[in-house]
Amino acid sequence: MSTRNWRVGVAGLGTVGAGLLTFLSERPGFAPAGGLVSVSGVSARSRSRPRPFDISGLAWFDDPVALAQSDEVDLFVELIGGSDGPAKAAVEAALKAGKPVVTANKALIAEHGAELAALAEAAGVPLLFEAAVMGGTPAVKMVREAMVGDDVRSISGILNGTCNFILTEMEQGGRAFEDVLAEAQRLGYAEADPTMDVGGFDAAHKITILAALAFNCAPDFAACEVEGVDQVELLDIRMAKDLGYRIKLIASADRSDEGVSVRVHPSLVPLAHPLAQAGGALNALFIEGERLGRIFIQGAGAGAGPTAAAVAADIADVMTQAMRPVFQRPATELAAFTPVDRSRSLVRAYLRLLVKDEPGVIAAVSETLAEAGVSIESFLQKPVEDAEGVPIVLTTHAVSEAVLAQAVERIGGHPAVIQAPRLMRIARI
Amino acid sequence: MSTRNWRVGVAGLGTVGAGLLTFLSERPGFAPAGGLVSVSGVSARSRSRPRPFDISGLAWFDDPVALAQSDEVDLFVELIGGSDGPAKAAVEAALKAGKPVVTANKALIAEHGAELAALAEAAGVPLLFEAAVMGGTPAVKMVREAMVGDDVRSISGILNGTCNFILTEMEQGGRAFEDVLAEAQRLGYAEADPTMDVGGFDAAHKITILAALAFNCAPDFAACEVEGVDQVELLDIRMAKDLGYRIKLIASADRSDEGVSVRVHPSLVPLAHPLAQAGGALNALFIEGERLGRIFIQGAGAGAGPTAAAVAADIADVMTQAMRPVFQRPATELAAFTPVDRSRSLVRAYLRLLVKDEPGVIAAVSETLAEAGVSIESFLQKPVEDAEGVPIVLTTHAVSEAVLAQAVERIGGHPAVIQAPRLMRIARI
Repeated sequence: MSTRNWRVGVAGLGTVGAGLLTFLSERPGFAPAGGLVSVSGVSARSRSRPRPFDISGLAWFDDPVALAQSDEVDLFVELIGGSDGPAKAAVEAALKAGKPVVTANKALIAEHGAELAALAEAAGVPLLFEAAVMGGTPAVKMVREAMVGDDVRSISGILNGTCNFILTEMEQGGRAFEDVLAEAQRLGYAEADPTMDVGGFDAAHKITILAALAFNCAPDFAACEVEGVDQVELLDIRMAKDLGYRIKLIASADRSDEGVSVRVHPSLVPLAHPLAQAGGALNALFIEGERLGRIFIQGAGAGAGPTAAAVAADIADVMTQAMRPVFQRPATELAAFTPVDRSRSLVRAYLRLLVKDEPGVIAAVSETLAEAGVSIESFLQKPVEDAEGVPIVLTTHAVSEAVLAQAVERIGGHPAVIQAPRLMRIARI
Repeated sequence: MSTRNWRVGVAGLGTVGAGLLTFLSERPGFAPAGGLVSVSGVSARSRSRPRPFDISGLAWFDDPVALAQSDEVDLFVELIGGSDGPAKAAVEAALKAGKPVVTANKALIAEHGAELAALAEAAGVPLLFEAAVMGGTPAVKMVREAMVGDDVRSISGILNGTCNFILTEMEQGGRAFEDVLAEAQRLGYAEADPTMDVGGFDAAHKITILAALAFNCAPDFAACEVEGVDQVELLDIRMAKDLGYRIKLIASADRSDEGVSVRVHPSLVPLAHPLAQAGGALNALFIEGERLGRIFIQGAGAGAGPTAAAVAADIADVMTQAMRPVFQRPATELAAFTPVDRSRSLVRAYLRLLVKDEPGVIAAVSETLAEAGVSIESFLQKPVEDAEGVPIVLTTHAVSEAVLAQAVERIGGHPAVIQAPRLMRIARI
């Protein structure tokens, strides 16, 4: 066992940084690979802000880049956040100085992972980011290390706790999206600017990282289709439930002979499915491999304790001096994402229409869909008080995305349809 | 990245060994940490037995110890099985020769893990055993590496696929234990001698290993309480279901201030609980940590493909040259298991009694239990055709194991009770 001690520099003292410093102060003998860990320096926006732990004995750096380059730092922990700016500059500086980096920054890895991996591998140091996906639940380790003896076919799951909390509260409390979001913001579960979460971008960063690990590709955030939960209405949650489904924000990545497909969508999940049963702020993920079959993993996706524990586990991994490619294959050999032509993908859809309350409308809608090549699987109409029109929902049999898109356009133009149709996919899980 | 190539010696060419050789032949460029992997030598009981892969180009060893010591072998993979005999001798020989060892042998690690860890750490080489628990589902990596930044409170789950298959088939087909076991043996899901599986010993080996990893203890198989599924009757499965439970073989390990408790029991799990919903040959596990909260993991627990993928992942970990203690803490510093005094543990119980079909019997039973200090939570009596007596089942409120044991003894001696009471615990999960 190595008895080398490691001096850690921590940039960013928000929730996760505070959790890490608290953990290390509670575990002064933390020696997961022989040597000891100590924090030697910190950097944050404000030095004087009151904190629940003492930083007076630690070297202070106004500039995280200077911390990353300091001779007093053997291992740099980046907890600043953001895909560019000081976080990226500091991580680059640390890697160029030949220092291992641990980060919780999903945006940074999803958007600049390949170039950072190249820097790390050129310097011969690890770049680890367990805390970037599913907080303390080790999704990254699972895909990166445990699936190395397998070929991953698909990954799908719930990767954003804020959206899952909002959808759960909407269903259980019968409350509108805006109402639950405002409460989540008051409670600190959602940011003041909730776009990253509710717009689906946070989940998209995470599935981009997992897809890169699983499929030996350079992470390509721009190739991810993203749709958030901000357009999900309580009416859809209720109608879907009547049809036997729960609406979840599902992030998924699939590989086929044609290429890779990575996307985040609100999707209908059968009520009895484990992903439908993961409520509140939980995260949950299925990973399907050629040999391993389907592995399911579920746990807390965020929070100071879990995320700090993930950072601590990464620090331990650095201390073991393990060296392997950042994304399973050397950065110079990573394939580009080859997006599949999704127009040919088969999909089952949920469609909600608001139609005029007139005789013959349902027959007309059915006929229009049939003419467009879409076959209806189930159909539901419920009276809704005070509504302008009559909402009807239907699910389709499998149909290509191209045919579906044409059908939705056509039905949207029907004179009896008084609102743009609402389309969601039924999860293939 | 290291470009060191690794020559692997594989002892044991049964299901898992065959899966590993097939995997490596399908992936000639398998280079998870830079260098390449090749199999240089093999050992098995019979050289001439027909196999679905070609071993003619590999060095053959009649004696696995000679293979472990061979100069042509850099990494020794032990897939022989058994806690002693050639498996143990060969692993010891490899470690003493300074060679990393990967094994799928749960009995070996559960019964001799601490001494083998001491050998490995003295030689400065890894000893890895991911495939020993949950096949390809990375339970060992999760507890050993991902939970290193946490303090594990408890682990509980389903760790034996054969027992889970049998219990699932009994319930779904309404069939007796012996009937399903015979079928499982015909299908190759159960061994000719099924004692290791149905007696609970296989699950006990696995939970012993996880408990050692989680609690920084030397594995102590003898300290594990073990009860198998061979006494579970179809009647209990039905009665439990009527009360809202499914019977599962639950392996669990808990740590408290008083010590550690490790056990395997058929237990009642609420029908809606994820462990109740893991059917067939699935394995499933909850790990609860102070910081990480509850993490759930589920997947295939056995089979050539998954288990070989786990062995391949361990080979990859060896190739990264990571060094950490085998059981999270150096073998010389591992604590002994301090078993808790279980007589004071609180438990909720399921009790089935066969009583005479006479007036006043139920009142008498209730009274006897009340006098013994056991409070009844629910009670069920169902007519059973052709039965000698009347079966009644009840569940209790929480009671100490000591009080429960006295009550069961007392009720068993009651003149109206015509068969030894059947006691099972309701899982605390």
